[in-house]
Amino acid sequence: MLPPSLIKLIHKLRILPGVGQKSAQRYALHLVEKHRSQALELGESIVSALKELQKCSECGALQEMHHVCHLCSHPSRDKSVIMIVPSLFDIIHFESLKFYNGLYHVIGGQLSPIDGIGPDNLHLHNLRERCLNVTEIILALSHTLEGESTAYYIAQLLKNSSCKITRLAAGIPVGGDLEHIDLHTLTLALNGRQPYEH
Amino acid sequence: MLPPSLIKLIHKLRILPGVGQKSAQRYALHLVEKHRSQALELGESIVSALKELQKCSECGALQEMHHVCHLCSHPSRDKSVIMIVPSLFDIIHFESLKFYNGLYHVIGGQLSPIDGIGPDNLHLHNLRERCLNVTEIILALSHTLEGESTAYYIAQLLKNSSCKITRLAAGIPVGGDLEHIDLHTLTLALNGRQPYEH
Repeated sequence: MLPPSLIKLIHKLRILPGVGQKSAQRYALHLVEKHRSQALELGESIVSALKELQKCSECGALQEMHHVCHLCSHPSRDKSVIMIVPSLFDIIHFESLKFYNGLYHVIGGQLSPIDGIGPDNLHLHNLRERCLNVTEIILALSHTLEGESTAYYIAQLLKNSSCKITRLAAGIPVGGDLEHIDLHTLTLALNGRQPYEH
Repeated sequence: MLPPSLIKLIHKLRILPGVGQKSAQRYALHLVEKHRSQALELGESIVSALKELQKCSECGALQEMHHVCHLCSHPSRDKSVIMIVPSLFDIIHFESLKFYNGLYHVIGGQLSPIDGIGPDNLHLHNLRERCLNVTEIILALSHTLEGESTAYYIAQLLKNSSCKITRLAAGIPVGGDLEHIDLHTLTLALNGRQPYEH
């Protein structure tokens, strides 16, 4: 009943995360029925972004092709420490906070067998090599099952390396009300308690 | 901080209905970081759908170009009645129910000054002409402010025409619990009450 190219578009829109059949229909209609010129720009910018953006062979962050990665090559950055993050957007978040000045390593996700993400799907092949030149590796991974597995896997991978491996502290977030903090977080906060300094 | 083509993609994704900055970022990352081959297919299918799909000059429904509109031309359809619907998806819904066999007229939305949708943005230019050949026009518009305005506008447009203009009944939906039905619907249901037949 629907024209074939519309059926195909609806099907393809479903690759977006959290988009089911109804949302895909709504998106498709919005694009082809109501906002054709903007839709064309969207289609073209997906194609051109895929063409332009490549992962930096060093740190794994997406970069415009033919550009030197400004994160790896910037002269003012501290090259003795690497922070391992799941995605480019974590870098953006850290950079917006302006308190970290080391290098990054984007692994492109966290281990999750249920989603079919194994070690081979992560950008890890050159991590051991990069570690040779740094003194510390900071694991900026989430405190979830996936984050724990990934942290453990990376620690195993680097066990013969001489650099220090640290992980972002788990605990009570600023402003968090104690009575609403879950058991697991409280346990981690208690285990990781710090000397109180006046 | 983000590569320009990624910033552009995020910006363009925001034309999708209900998609804000955070969702657009999530979609963009999903496309360019994780699912590149599917993303390319999505980009290309947006472009090709826009190229292939055109509105039928008669009924306004989206059709593959170079195809005769199968809704307008199908020999078994009752050509004495036209149902006016806001979008192609309303046709699909009616067709899936298999109880209406007349023609359609897709106006492509409903009047909504706040969204910048005026009469010129709707497919209405040939409606008067199409009415010359039919005995009834059914307004299948929503019972909202936009639907009411659109119904009123169309009725005014066709006031000198000889065909009957009807509108889908407003009332209590099947299975609707009386105590949860809003005042406006109840008023419409009461005003539109029908003789009860055993």
